[in-house]
Amino acid sequence: MAAFTTRRRVEFRDTDAAGIVHFSAFFLWMESAEHELLRAAGLRVIDRGPDGIDSSWPRVSVACDYTAAVRFGDELDVAVVVEKIGRTSVTYGFAFTHAGRAVAHGRVVAVRCLLHPGRNPEAVPIPADIVARLAPFRPQG
Amino acid sequence: MAAFTTRRRVEFRDTDAAGIVHFSAFFLWMESAEHELLRAAGLRVIDRGPDGIDSSWPRVSVACDYTAAVRFGDELDVAVVVEKIGRTSVTYGFAFTHAGRAVAHGRVVAVRCLLHPGRNPEAVPIPADIVARLAPFRPQG
Amino acid sequence: MAAFTTRRRVEFRDTDAAGIVHFSAFFLWMESAEHELLRAAGLRVIDRGPDGIDSSWPRVSVACDYTAAVRFGDELDVAVVVEKIGRTSVTYGFAFTHAGRAVAHGRVVAVRCLLHPGRNPEAVPIPADIVARLAPFRPQG
Amino acid sequence: MAAFTTRRRVEFRDTDAAGIVHFSAFFLWMESAEHELLRAAGLRVIDRGPDGIDSSWPRVSVACDYTAAVRFGDELDVAVVVEKIGRTSVTYGFAFTHAGRAVAHGRVVAVRCLLHPGRNPEAVPIPADIVARLAPFRPQG
Repeated sequence: MAAFTTRRRVEFRDTDAAGIVHFSAFFLWMESAEHELLRAAGLRVIDRGPDGIDSSWPRVSVACDYTAAVRFGDELDVAVVVEKIGRTSVTYGFAFTHAGRAVAHGRVVAVRCLLHPGRNPEAVPIPADIVARLAPFRPQG
Repeated sequence: MAAFTTRRRVEFRDTDAAGIVHFSAFFLWMESAEHELLRAAGLRVIDRGPDGIDSSWPRVSVACDYTAAVRFGDELDVAVVVEKIGRTSVTYGFAFTHAGRAVAHGRVVAVRCLLHPGRNPEAVPIPADIVARLAPFRPQG
Repeated sequence: MAAFTTRRRVEFRDTDAAGIVHFSAFFLWMESAEHELLRAAGLRVIDRGPDGIDSSWPRVSVACDYTAAVRFGDELDVAVVVEKIGRTSVTYGFAFTHAGRAVAHGRVVAVRCLLHPGRNPEAVPIPADIVARLAPFRPQG
Repeated sequence: MAAFTTRRRVEFRDTDAAGIVHFSAFFLWMESAEHELLRAAGLRVIDRGPDGIDSSWPRVSVACDYTAAVRFGDELDVAVVVEKIGRTSVTYGFAFTHAGRAVAHGRVVAVRCLLHPGRNPEAVPIPADIVARLAPFRPQG
């Protein structure tokens, strides 16, 4: 059971010369759906710290399995769950359906990081208030 | 040990406002490196059949793990191996390094399909001559 | 005065390492806004002819001028007018604003074409019923 | 007569469901060709100033006209000239050909700017040494 749902329409730029959606488009939809979930949870995608350093959620692992082709103009339903909340990372699961039929499943592991300009992102523990705001998006038992 | 290597430069459009490469760019590099391997093997990415129907390689499963940030202008070395050749599918493994340091690992499962216009791709057995041409790109034992 | 308005949110993938929206993103928004206008006009973006040949609107000329930077998360208002309807082409004008302030102006000339598979698009006169449906989106005098 | 030439191969992601290259891909090729020209001129795309502020070249105006369709796998020759050097801006012209035949012409006006984090880019005069390094890429009379 998904805790957050949204919808995406397939734009022309999402397609390729095979006449169907390019597989990479699903990762852009996953990212924008994750950001929409964060906003729905009352969170910001990028937090500016008191020291002027931004925190955000770079991903360390992503995957997608495809079960049916999708075409220009199709409307996709996207269901997102927070599968797991670790010390520094959040794992999201995404189920894409078109007209009620599964077309793809994805998974994204995002890590809470400080974004020091010009350096690698630095993983940090997820603040307790963020954990609390994400909890309602866990799958319902 | 990789059987095929190529190189990609990070273009400005590959970056995002975190100042690093957007995670989705690696999937575009994987696809173009796969196509470069196919051409190096003497194969075509899209084959037009005698009946006018194209065959190609839609993907059914893709994944990528990220270990270090990459920036605008960096040159990435891409090593590709054919991890597995099944009846209808080929599994590719990709290792991305920058200045000798691992930055990402990816995997793509592509399925040999007939592309009937307006219908879902139809999986078909991989022809023997294609299997033979991909064999040299298996990991060396 | 614009006849059609829509809205786009800046997604993370639309940004680049300069911290602002990549200039090319505006062309994707122009295309999707044009398609939204066509649907609002009761038209299809791609028409399948009785002979099985598709007709659509490849562009022959596009341009964009930028007047202010736009950032991740910003919501942009897009106003579209049909500036001109020629024998085979339609010229659209796009005004992008953020919080009431102009950020970009674009123009697209799209040509009605038959899309013969594997050949160049062939320009054809715009059918009268399409001209009639686009007329309400001309600028109001 | 062009002063700088390079080549781009059409990747699968550059195509769309009309079976041809998406018009927006040409803007990505223009940007990467411009950056290649800057490197060939001994210049950096992004300059870090002594005060830690970056300078670069946001664009204020871009355009492209299309004269023939291009397809997956095609190799495009790109000829770039520096059409004009103003006080703060450089105008580049791009001619794209495939197998000797013109397929597109583009123009980009890029402005020398300071990139203060979180503020709009600030136009500044182009330093004399940069003007000197770009001069050889003016069209030959």
